[in-house]
Amino acid sequence: MRKSAADRFRHLFNRSLVFVRNQNQQYHHPSPLRSLSSMASDSPFPVTAQNINPQVLKCQYAVRGEIVTLAQNLQKALQANPDAHSFDEIIYCNIGNPQSLGQQPITFFREVLALCDYPALLDKSETQGLFSADSIERAWQLVDQIPGRATGAYSHSQGIQGLRDTIAAGIEERDGFPCNANDIFLTDGASPAVHMMMQLLIRSEKDGILCPIPQYPLYSASITLHGGHLVPYYLDEATGWGLEISELKKQLEDAKSKGISVRALAAINPGNPTGQVLAEDNQRAIVEFCKQEGLVLLADEVYQENVYVPEKKFHSFKKVSRSMGYGDNDICLVSFQSVSKGYHGECGKRGGYMEVTGFSPDVREQIYKVASANLCSNITGQILASLIMSPPKVGDESYESFMAERGAILSSLTTRAKALEEALNKLEGVTCNKAEGAMYLFPRIRLPEKAIKAAEAEKSAPDAFYCKRLLNATGIVVVPGFGFGQVPGTWHFRCTILPQEDRIPAIVTRLTEFHQKFMDEFRD
Amino acid sequence: MRKSAADRFRHLFNRSLVFVRNQNQQYHHPSPLRSLSSMASDSPFPVTAQNINPQVLKCQYAVRGEIVTLAQNLQKALQANPDAHSFDEIIYCNIGNPQSLGQQPITFFREVLALCDYPALLDKSETQGLFSADSIERAWQLVDQIPGRATGAYSHSQGIQGLRDTIAAGIEERDGFPCNANDIFLTDGASPAVHMMMQLLIRSEKDGILCPIPQYPLYSASITLHGGHLVPYYLDEATGWGLEISELKKQLEDAKSKGISVRALAAINPGNPTGQVLAEDNQRAIVEFCKQEGLVLLADEVYQENVYVPEKKFHSFKKVSRSMGYGDNDICLVSFQSVSKGYHGECGKRGGYMEVTGFSPDVREQIYKVASANLCSNITGQILASLIMSPPKVGDESYESFMAERGAILSSLTTRAKALEEALNKLEGVTCNKAEGAMYLFPRIRLPEKAIKAAEAEKSAPDAFYCKRLLNATGIVVVPGFGFGQVPGTWHFRCTILPQEDRIPAIVTRLTEFHQKFMDEFRD
Repeated sequence: MRKSAADRFRHLFNRSLVFVRNQNQQYHHPSPLRSLSSMASDSPFPVTAQNINPQVLKCQYAVRGEIVTLAQNLQKALQANPDAHSFDEIIYCNIGNPQSLGQQPITFFREVLALCDYPALLDKSETQGLFSADSIERAWQLVDQIPGRATGAYSHSQGIQGLRDTIAAGIEERDGFPCNANDIFLTDGASPAVHMMMQLLIRSEKDGILCPIPQYPLYSASITLHGGHLVPYYLDEATGWGLEISELKKQLEDAKSKGISVRALAAINPGNPTGQVLAEDNQRAIVEFCKQEGLVLLADEVYQENVYVPEKKFHSFKKVSRSMGYGDNDICLVSFQSVSKGYHGECGKRGGYMEVTGFSPDVREQIYKVASANLCSNITGQILASLIMSPPKVGDESYESFMAERGAILSSLTTRAKALEEALNKLEGVTCNKAEGAMYLFPRIRLPEKAIKAAEAEKSAPDAFYCKRLLNATGIVVVPGFGFGQVPGTWHFRCTILPQEDRIPAIVTRLTEFHQKFMDEFRD
Repeated sequence: MRKSAADRFRHLFNRSLVFVRNQNQQYHHPSPLRSLSSMASDSPFPVTAQNINPQVLKCQYAVRGEIVTLAQNLQKALQANPDAHSFDEIIYCNIGNPQSLGQQPITFFREVLALCDYPALLDKSETQGLFSADSIERAWQLVDQIPGRATGAYSHSQGIQGLRDTIAAGIEERDGFPCNANDIFLTDGASPAVHMMMQLLIRSEKDGILCPIPQYPLYSASITLHGGHLVPYYLDEATGWGLEISELKKQLEDAKSKGISVRALAAINPGNPTGQVLAEDNQRAIVEFCKQEGLVLLADEVYQENVYVPEKKFHSFKKVSRSMGYGDNDICLVSFQSVSKGYHGECGKRGGYMEVTGFSPDVREQIYKVASANLCSNITGQILASLIMSPPKVGDESYESFMAERGAILSSLTTRAKALEEALNKLEGVTCNKAEGAMYLFPRIRLPEKAIKAAEAEKSAPDAFYCKRLLNATGIVVVPGFGFGQVPGTWHFRCTILPQEDRIPAIVTRLTEFHQKFMDEFRD
């Protein structure tokens, strides 16, 4: 029954993510173009919101949007007066930023980074006492891999060759299939890599990119910024955010019938915000679909280390496509990886890479050129990207402690995911799929009619209304579902599983109390 | 006489930097669209050079273009066989990348970075013996400025507040005028900041940006990628690359008459590739021009520390505009700064900032949103950007050694600039303006008719032909002038002043011998 309602909505609205915005504009986001047209045209400023790039104006990025600005203001108020609110701190569950919530960096990685930042340490005897032997050895290797040992030089536009060799070896070990270091483009995190591919593929608003709904808003933002068209495909909440090929086909045909030339399919696995981990046969079907339809498969695999259920395993789309017998000339595949996620969570280092396969040499040259126009990604991030793909091995001095740190973080994330999921499922009118992977839960909240009306009165989307109420009452920051896209008429929010384990009970209590009060206030 | 010839050419070609490309396409760069249309349309690849974003295809970035690819191939050949060529190494003078040519990083900066990368060091007693006292103190300050001491977390989209406060204080000290930390946007180097502003300002090919010719190709590349129109203004080589307001007015009127809406003026000071340092009264006239014409002044000030002549001083455009009495509501000004240049040359750290003043709050919000779509710049680069704006002070333990390192680099750059300039001016048919600042010389080469014909026969631009010959004969990599733009019919190349001082005599000898042989071969 949910499905037929969804289908009805799709028929009405399903033209692009625009529907997601429109749906909310009526409540919450007045069209920027409309609301700003009321500004005086004799502004003293030559640049106004009316005369900037309209694609910038249209772009939305909810995970750092209105709710975060509100949280920052509350935080300032708390700093000025600790008694300003009924809570004593803001808990940022809006973004996958583990270290901001107390996760400690992996010691080995930081040892190596420090030595590479100040290689003079490598020659000093005191260093032996301060650093593990394998971190010193690794730093020597890395510094030697950098041409001229120039740790402060621009690198090759794709990144330092030796680091790309290491990453390629790591991918080979992960997948059991060959990887060419020339296919690796090191980037300042996954976001610039995604922007780079959108810039390459999108020619006009007639070019479409198939994106899951719900999706991580990087995709919608990037498509909008580059003037393209988001073609949504819906993940099925009822089957644990399942990805159905029939839905892909339907949406593709629908887009084609509207004159949209669909260039690529974005798949996020493990899923953000949904937390689902794709089954291997599902991945095969996706590869086959992209192959048959001539679509570039943009595989967002930044959560590849974050899988929390024994029955699921991460398989890269590269491995899946190679295991199907498809080689470099058969399928266009870009895999995105980042140092920001996994067990390391080094968001601030802005490191990552994309592995680019299946493009002709002349197109590869164009990707290289776009990379060159930013010279290179940061070397610290490059080094870290090579480290996460080649962590300490059995026999290395750091191996035991590294595995202990890694294991503690991943098992704690598993515990936290489960605790929060269970708590959410106990709330009245809330259902929440399991986080099989990634760093998020995306519960559905069934809001009473009275709450929806109250939201309308505040010109707010119902889910944004709920999230703002939650923030003001508890200091917990979550992101309304409309930022990710959702079946019209349904409401969700995204909450990270990242607060430290000992904080979870208190968060659950605050959330539960808030929700109960909210429902008491608005129950129909 | 040069001028009248130039004027004639301008009349013929002066529609945008397109002329620079057209001029060279006939020799050297077959139109990508044309040359690729001969490719089989039944390519096995769904993505081809014919169906990617044409703006990507059109974009050119000469400093990492054909000549660098050729150099990389020569280097590989040398690695395989040290006797493969008549020289034993490649000397990369194509890009301002000081540490790749042996410049050592500033010790204090690297000490601080290492401590921030691995803050556990701060608690250990051995650290006192390994690091200077003020680097330890500074690292403590920095770590304390990072919310939750989370050195691996995403920061605020504009960068860490405390670091922006430090940078703002540094700007105030430099300029003697107030600076608001909220105007600072920390970025992964200056390039992404320039891209961000182009993305904001350019709506269509009818939007123009006034750029100096010659210019740093980041500007032409970014304008092309964002679908805008480069409106050239010519620097006058005869007067040391002087910037004349009459030329700005003429080009602006010309662009307007063609229906181009000019949004901004880019000024590079000290100049790249020209090395000129603008005089303060010239800067005042530029500010007044932008103010009167409602143009955003994009001030590329990344070489602010690199001034080599006593008669010139760097003045920021912010200081100049404030000293004219223009405040935040009077002129739109964006100043770009980078950790890659100056005396530090930390290119690989990808740090920098832009100071954004004179924009309305709603436009500021849009800039914030674009910054958010990449989450934040890398924290190492952020820290370094704060350090270059607040280096050690009198009384700090590192002060003397810091000043000695800084002084040695800057005075050596002065010596190198002068030595190379003098050597170039001795070459037959070559004239070279003084490098008053920045890191480059941009000599004009008068090529014999026979050389131009030989270049034509190779379908190469004459300056590219010369540069390739130079590379093949000496291993020295310089960039042909067409990558920067030049008055049609004139030929130049850009050469950095960055090889280490003890290497300069050998480079001069090799260059001189090559040039003489070249002229002997082609002299009319």
